[in-house]
Amino acid sequence: MKKIVVNLGERSYPILIGEGLLDSKGLFDEFIKGKKVCIVTNSTIAEHYLDKLQSNLTDYQTSAFIIEDGEQFKTMRTYTQILDFLLSWKVDRKSTVIALGGGVVGDVAGFAAASCLRGINFIQIPTTLLAQVDSSVGGKTGVNHKMGKNLIGAFYQPSCVVADLSTLDTLSSREFSSGMAEVIKYGLIRDSDFFDWIEANAVNIKAMHKPHLSHIVARSCEIKAEIVSKDEKEYGLRAILNLGHTFGHAIEAALGYGQWLHGEAISAGMIMATSMSKAMGDIDDSTLVRVTKLFSEFNLPVGPPESMSKQQMKGLMAYDKKTVDSSIRLILLEQLGNAYVSNDYPDELLDQIITQALK
Amino acid sequence: MKKIVVNLGERSYPILIGEGLLDSKGLFDEFIKGKKVCIVTNSTIAEHYLDKLQSNLTDYQTSAFIIEDGEQFKTMRTYTQILDFLLSWKVDRKSTVIALGGGVVGDVAGFAAASCLRGINFIQIPTTLLAQVDSSVGGKTGVNHKMGKNLIGAFYQPSCVVADLSTLDTLSSREFSSGMAEVIKYGLIRDSDFFDWIEANAVNIKAMHKPHLSHIVARSCEIKAEIVSKDEKEYGLRAILNLGHTFGHAIEAALGYGQWLHGEAISAGMIMATSMSKAMGDIDDSTLVRVTKLFSEFNLPVGPPESMSKQQMKGLMAYDKKTVDSSIRLILLEQLGNAYVSNDYPDELLDQIITQALK
Repeated sequence: MKKIVVNLGERSYPILIGEGLLDSKGLFDEFIKGKKVCIVTNSTIAEHYLDKLQSNLTDYQTSAFIIEDGEQFKTMRTYTQILDFLLSWKVDRKSTVIALGGGVVGDVAGFAAASCLRGINFIQIPTTLLAQVDSSVGGKTGVNHKMGKNLIGAFYQPSCVVADLSTLDTLSSREFSSGMAEVIKYGLIRDSDFFDWIEANAVNIKAMHKPHLSHIVARSCEIKAEIVSKDEKEYGLRAILNLGHTFGHAIEAALGYGQWLHGEAISAGMIMATSMSKAMGDIDDSTLVRVTKLFSEFNLPVGPPESMSKQQMKGLMAYDKKTVDSSIRLILLEQLGNAYVSNDYPDELLDQIITQALK
Repeated sequence: MKKIVVNLGERSYPILIGEGLLDSKGLFDEFIKGKKVCIVTNSTIAEHYLDKLQSNLTDYQTSAFIIEDGEQFKTMRTYTQILDFLLSWKVDRKSTVIALGGGVVGDVAGFAAASCLRGINFIQIPTTLLAQVDSSVGGKTGVNHKMGKNLIGAFYQPSCVVADLSTLDTLSSREFSSGMAEVIKYGLIRDSDFFDWIEANAVNIKAMHKPHLSHIVARSCEIKAEIVSKDEKEYGLRAILNLGHTFGHAIEAALGYGQWLHGEAISAGMIMATSMSKAMGDIDDSTLVRVTKLFSEFNLPVGPPESMSKQQMKGLMAYDKKTVDSSIRLILLEQLGNAYVSNDYPDELLDQIITQALK
């Protein structure tokens, strides 16, 4: 088992990574204070892992709240239903919420834990690659709104994250690839050696070889933990984690949430951001080719859907919440392994990149 | 103008107290970063002060969201409506929410500010005595739930609190008395000299003499700021601010929110807590008499409503959120000016106090 610590002073917590952790008796004991534990999960995950988890928590009074599976259920309605359940079950300030599932479960259950009695104990058990390497780490919780993704929520840190690699076995290959988009992102924004390693080991990763999975999850978490420790509330540095996301969120919103997976949308977005970086003169053509090739290798889209118009893309980008005082903030690459935040770029260049990507 | 600082590291903020602050040009400039300012207020307060405030914010793009007046509107529904308004108005991460009103407005607008884009800038302008001395200070925000008061919310600190004493002129005498309950509380839990001072100056306070109001607001805020600085998230000390509240919340829930004002309910609760402290042998009879007399002097109830049953009181107390692992936590007085938190008292004593209060 690997252990990575997210350093946030008194709110520091470990990410535990390994095979078969859900079967590991007593693993959760040091992170649960009270008697009541409510597991929030979705209908798909419940079938695979709910019994296993509950049978490992027999020292506690447990309950389960099962939400429907899909990004379209990451709503105020689901959030309110979880709160109603928790309060009717009479949780107290020492009770625990465990999110068992992917990003949707983690985000909405985390937001409910954050606001139930103004914050109760919260544990993340991410069961998708995307959730293990990204959404479960760093304390961003929340729900979507008709105006855009993740517009309502809280920064709320869990008391631990348990990434059981065995849960990746039940993931569809499309879901797995979606997670790889975030893994590749860490190479792009922070660690060119890691990017090289993913390129060199793509075959073993695709074969779900456990030591390789362990490495990509651990290295991704290390990079995210380092960035979050330096800038928890995203006043600066943390924004680089959003490489490709402003484009990606626009794609998700245009198609309707759940049509393209998050990782698919941001793959197209990262290619657009890399193209923009090339147009800015920072990245050379061969790097853009390498980046495009690696996304392709994991069957990820390298451009936005043909059905989108330029107006749609720009309009939706402008209302991504990362907009500050109405200029669209972009994350760009200074070089492979090094990203920066920019509000200062020629508007016509962005126009050109969007036009080119959509033709 | 008096200035009291709530010390919370990088989240420290000032409480500004004085007459006519809403007319004070430029007062808000250092606390507003972006261009957009949304004022959340209620229908009653809007009539008195909304124009005045907006005319002092002409350098910004302002909007107003007006909620209905009353505790019964401190709900998830109002919270969601505010979020819908903010997001449709396209606030960004530098935008500001100003809560102009009493505790309900501050609590629900604060929770909306806390969760809009995972937290935008927030300013409190409390216009009732209760809000000036209590609810606007310390970062507790939230809404009620059918299971109890304030069960959903966030700890979210404002960037400043502006207590304009002139706004107290439009307060009903019943609302004013309700605020006095919290003022007297600070004397009881932390400062017997302040209690003495209130006793000695009751006539001038009731006459709304401004220097006296200035002193009670400032001293109350100082005590609350000191306690919150030491224990922001209520792991220990901060709980003493809840003297009388477990009883009081049960009364409010039993009668239906809004029947008794919060200050009225906790007055009865504080007398019950003081009686319990006397029964524990910590407070003598003459002190209980003094305490009862001072609440009476401000026309506050000194016992729970006759319509309540013992079962009702105990049942509702057990589901106040301050319950931890199912024992009812009480705040008791060691002596006048000194409170402590107790889960360890003879149950039959609590029974006896409730029986006695309800007969």
